Amino acid sequence: MQALGRQVLVEFYDCAEDAFADEAALRQHVRDAITASGGTIVTDVFHRFNPYGITGIVVITESHVAIHTWPEHRYVAIDIFTCGSTLDPWIIRDVLAQRLRPANTASMELQRGAIKEAGFAIPTQA
Amino acid sequence: MQALGRQVLVEFYDCAEDAFADEAALRQHVRDAITASGGTIVTDVFHRFNPYGITGIVVITESHVAIHTWPEHRYVAIDIFTCGSTLDPWIIRDVLAQRLRPANTASMELQRGAIKEAGFAIPTQA
Repeated sequence: MQALGRQVLVEFYDCAEDAFADEAALRQHVRDAITASGGTIVTDVFHRFNPYGITGIVVITESHVAIHTWPEHRYVAIDIFTCGSTLDPWIIRDVLAQRLRPANTASMELQRGAIKEAGFAIPTQA
Repeated sequence: MQALGRQVLVEFYDCAEDAFADEAALRQHVRDAITASGGTIVTDVFHRFNPYGITGIVVITESHVAIHTWPEHRYVAIDIFTCGSTLDPWIIRDVLAQRLRPANTASMELQRGAIKEAGFAIPTQA
């Protein structure tokens, strides 16, 4: 059994207060993390909600990275969905942990598109 | 223990051939599904990869919906990340199943941002 995609789901609890101040900084953190991981950015969209909270999505050639912030709970949810072998999703998690400085975290990795097939080789979506 | 977000991860295997033909149709399917669920669309981005595969992300006031297609495997991955109680994520899954007609499916629901707190009420991000 092999999988078309890998997905890392990340919970950051009790992040640094300044992690939530600046939408442009958050966007740059996510883009820097993707670049550090070996990912290739296609486009992104960041949206600030009223009264608070930012949603950011980055389309990458390897699939996507999504981030949602709840400043009032100092909580951040991150999803890293990848395919292919050029990108290490855990580097994205690690760079964002350095930037957002959560006191507590939890992460898990899932397989997506697990297909049982003779001679199956994991393709890239790029 | 209550959670800030709900996430439904959906695997569609052996979808109808015509599910993959048309990027505009796929985008409309996702937008229709969100509207049917009670969700509110903020913006979206759809990208077609070469030689095949489409990535689509829709930012909603309740968080996001992401879709990735692998036409060569007739496989579609869908993520539905929601907060608040106005949107039923399973309606999005059901509408997309009607449109893409998978022969086999698997889905699971996760809690995101599970916070133990006295008097905690689930907020909306909107």
